[in-house]
Amino acid sequence: MLIKMDVANKKGVEASYEEIIKTMGKLDVIVNVAGIFNDKDIQRTLLVNLGGMIHSTLSALKYMNKVNGGNGGLICNMASVVGLDPMFLVPVYAATKAGIINFTRCLSHEKFYQRSGVKLITVCPGATITDMFTNFTEKILFPEVADESYQVLDRLHKQSAADVARCIMSALENEENGTVYIIEGKRLFPMEMKRYWRGVEKELND
Amino acid sequence: MLIKMDVANKKGVEASYEEIIKTMGKLDVIVNVAGIFNDKDIQRTLLVNLGGMIHSTLSALKYMNKVNGGNGGLICNMASVVGLDPMFLVPVYAATKAGIINFTRCLSHEKFYQRSGVKLITVCPGATITDMFTNFTEKILFPEVADESYQVLDRLHKQSAADVARCIMSALENEENGTVYIIEGKRLFPMEMKRYWRGVEKELND
Repeated sequence: MLIKMDVANKKGVEASYEEIIKTMGKLDVIVNVAGIFNDKDIQRTLLVNLGGMIHSTLSALKYMNKVNGGNGGLICNMASVVGLDPMFLVPVYAATKAGIINFTRCLSHEKFYQRSGVKLITVCPGATITDMFTNFTEKILFPEVADESYQVLDRLHKQSAADVARCIMSALENEENGTVYIIEGKRLFPMEMKRYWRGVEKELND
Repeated sequence: MLIKMDVANKKGVEASYEEIIKTMGKLDVIVNVAGIFNDKDIQRTLLVNLGGMIHSTLSALKYMNKVNGGNGGLICNMASVVGLDPMFLVPVYAATKAGIINFTRCLSHEKFYQRSGVKLITVCPGATITDMFTNFTEKILFPEVADESYQVLDRLHKQSAADVARCIMSALENEENGTVYIIEGKRLFPMEMKRYWRGVEKELND
C-alpha cells in the first residue's frame, strides 16, 4: 500500500492515517523520515521537517494509544547529527532537526508511555549520500561559505541510505523508549543526553 | 519608535527592519523575544516561535554585517529551559525552543563572526510569570496530564518578566559570542553545551 502525502498538511496526514487504518486495521511501527534541505525556503523547511514529524507522530499515537483501544507500538523519528550539535552551514535545517529530537523526547516521557504503551525513539544520521547534497550550495543561506562547505562535506564519513535503513532496523529491535541514536559510519550509537536545567536547580538549592 | 509586526511573516519582518534603518540609521543590539504558547496550533507555533526568530535574526544580520557596511553588533534570541531539556507538558513549544537554540548557535560560528562582526547569544528562561500560563491546560495537547501539569507548575521557581529582562541586560554586557544562558531564580547561568557528534567521530577513529 503506497500513499503519497504532503506531511506539512496536517489534515492530509490525518486522512492518510485514517485510510491506512481502514485497510490494515492497526499500526505497530512508524518510521518518520520525510525531510527536505533548502535553507532559503524557511517556511517550507519548518513545516515539512518539523511540522511533518509532529503531525505524523500525533496521528500515529492516536491509533496506537492503548487508552483509545490501540495496541501500543513504536515510533521512530529521523533527525540528524546537526540537530544534536550546531552546524554552521545549515542553520535552518539544523533548527528543525533539533526540534524533532526534543519533540520526540518530550513524548517518550514515562507518564505518556505508561498510559499509551507507545515507545518513541530518535535516530540522527551523520552524512548520508542522498539527493539532499544535490545543488547543495544553491540551497544554503550564506554562499560565502560555499568553499568551506565542500571541504566539510569531503571530510565526512559518508554512508548510504541503505546503511542507515539497516541501522534503523537495529534501533527498532532495541526498542529502548526515549533513546536518541547517532547513525555514523554504518553503525548505531545510543547517546547519553545531557540534562541542563536540573543542574541549575541543584545549584540554586545548594 | 514602536512598530507592530507579525514575526511569522518574513516580508513583513524585512519591511520593518527597512523602516527602522531608515529612521535610526543602524542597529547595535537586537533582542528577539516574540513567542506564543498553544501546542494545539502547531503551524502557528512553528512559524511564530521558530520562524519569527529566524526571520528577525537574518534581517538584523543583513544590516549589522560588516561585509555589507554595517558595524557588527549583538543579537540575543530568547528560547526556554524546555528547549534544552524535554518537558512532557509542552512538546510542540519545546521543539521550537530547541530549534531556536540550535539555529542561534549555528550562526555564532567563528567563521561567520570573523566576517560579520555580529555576536549571537541565546537566553533560556525557566518558569516566568507571563500570560503564557493563562488557560494553560486548554492549550496543551494532552488534557489527561492537566493535573500533573499544575503540580509541575506549582513546584517551579517563578520569576517575573522584569527579572528576566535584568538578566538579559547582564547577558548582553557579557557579550560572549555563542553562549547559551539559563535564566532561573532571577540569576544568569552560562551553560557548557555538550557535543555529541565529535565523540562518535573519535570513537570511530580509535
